[in-house]
Amino acid sequence: MFHWSVGVRRIVIVGLGLIGGSIGLALKRSGGTDSELVGYVRTPEAGDRALALGVVDRVEHSLSAAVGGADVVILATPVTAIKGILAEIGPRLPEGCLVTDVASTKSEVMNWAEQYLPPTVDFIGGHPMAGKELSGMDAAEADLFQGRIYCLVPGRGASADAVQVAVDLVRQIGARPYFTTASEHDECVAAISHLPLVVSSALVLATTQSAHWSGMSALAASGYRDMTRLAAQHPQMARDICLTNRENIVHWIDLFTAELSRLRQLIEVGDEVELQRSFRDAREARRRWQDEHGSGG
Amino acid sequence: MFHWSVGVRRIVIVGLGLIGGSIGLALKRSGGTDSELVGYVRTPEAGDRALALGVVDRVEHSLSAAVGGADVVILATPVTAIKGILAEIGPRLPEGCLVTDVASTKSEVMNWAEQYLPPTVDFIGGHPMAGKELSGMDAAEADLFQGRIYCLVPGRGASADAVQVAVDLVRQIGARPYFTTASEHDECVAAISHLPLVVSSALVLATTQSAHWSGMSALAASGYRDMTRLAAQHPQMARDICLTNRENIVHWIDLFTAELSRLRQLIEVGDEVELQRSFRDAREARRRWQDEHGSGG
Repeated sequence: MFHWSVGVRRIVIVGLGLIGGSIGLALKRSGGTDSELVGYVRTPEAGDRALALGVVDRVEHSLSAAVGGADVVILATPVTAIKGILAEIGPRLPEGCLVTDVASTKSEVMNWAEQYLPPTVDFIGGHPMAGKELSGMDAAEADLFQGRIYCLVPGRGASADAVQVAVDLVRQIGARPYFTTASEHDECVAAISHLPLVVSSALVLATTQSAHWSGMSALAASGYRDMTRLAAQHPQMARDICLTNRENIVHWIDLFTAELSRLRQLIEVGDEVELQRSFRDAREARRRWQDEHGSGG
Repeated sequence: MFHWSVGVRRIVIVGLGLIGGSIGLALKRSGGTDSELVGYVRTPEAGDRALALGVVDRVEHSLSAAVGGADVVILATPVTAIKGILAEIGPRLPEGCLVTDVASTKSEVMNWAEQYLPPTVDFIGGHPMAGKELSGMDAAEADLFQGRIYCLVPGRGASADAVQVAVDLVRQIGARPYFTTASEHDECVAAISHLPLVVSSALVLATTQSAHWSGMSALAASGYRDMTRLAAQHPQMARDICLTNRENIVHWIDLFTAELSRLRQLIEVGDEVELQRSFRDAREARRRWQDEHGSGG
């Protein structure tokens, strides 16, 4: 039985896609709370589906009605929708309410929260380091966050109680809280998450647009499959990630391109020694990461 | 019980690493042949291990002794060793013997075969589109080729019987024969196999060499893991692939870099419409490939 450090009677999840739905399932499975779990979705169809899948206890189709009486509000919509939602719910949030989100980028979200939320509520940005190429409520699973890192970025003046509730929430869905700042978070994820996404998409586009693709496609095997999995991500989500973390992503594309260009040069001149050294360094660095952090991946 | 279309009494595998060992295991499991399976390895330790793992019936530590009386010789060494081996075994191969290889690039191998093998034997280049990041005999598995494409490149003047034996061999290990030419093969694999390898390695090097890597590494999750799996390939093998397919790989790095640079530009100026279109195109192209060919990957 999970104990909240602070009384939490009502948790509202705004948006029940892969992440929002999985949080709902994970919270319900943990079963250790008397809190009511409310889901906000726009359409009655999505609401029926949410109740059928059991991701929340109750659904609301009005944002104001949904957040009324909430102790915790989790924004699990596309990042570009967050600004408008914050503006809309800001005046309606109960005093002392904790608001959090799950977006892949944090700097813009933190700015919007500061701009639109009243000082009577606390905002703590969140980002679970988990996902899969499928999206939507039907892909949701209670295990999605098990053992994964969950970034937390406390907003300016967030109370100790709010931080504790956020930590409780993260632990209750099986994840590991990791405190960071918005700028540090966005720099890091640009390298280890957004650059891979852009690279994966560029790889798909470069190869499949070739006039020789039909001959090649039959030969593509597990290496190609793994390297292009991220390109299957939802296009709007991929776009929003890029639009809300532009500077960092461009910086990392440049660093990556410089490294690729160095390898290209070694291949062109046939530099056996440096090529082998580079592949060896890459393999060793990858192994070190795998040994330290890769198991949960 | 598998029937060889042409009598095959002795099959010799030169080199018992991941691929050679897996061919041995797959042939022995198919159990449908009276052929003797002989393995050539350099050290007595490797020979003992091969017999203990049951990848061949008998081991030889002399190349000449190994290939004597062979109906089929499968070269499963690193590609750079093939030239020397062909020169050494050429004069010792029985008349009518089929020689094949499993190297990731085919043009150079086909040239060497033409140069060093006598007209009394047939050469058919081979390349199973299967692998994993582990290497060595202990990683070998009988299922490695199940359902996978196996490229076959008949050498100049290869006999119909030799072609039939190669097809039998491929089918017997569970793979699907796919006839192609050396130049077509090397162009295709540059795009769908070698470019991904170089990109994966560049991604590892660019990220892990960053001064901020220690902070990032904890956040890297399944996306990073998949995108860097190929970088764990054996450095000598990766180097040899690059050295024997230089022109094609450089060409594909350039096409890929142009596409990445286009995406970079869209991100820098924040072009919502074109970014979403690109990610959508990538996702759709990847899905089409997955639907048509991805299941076996």
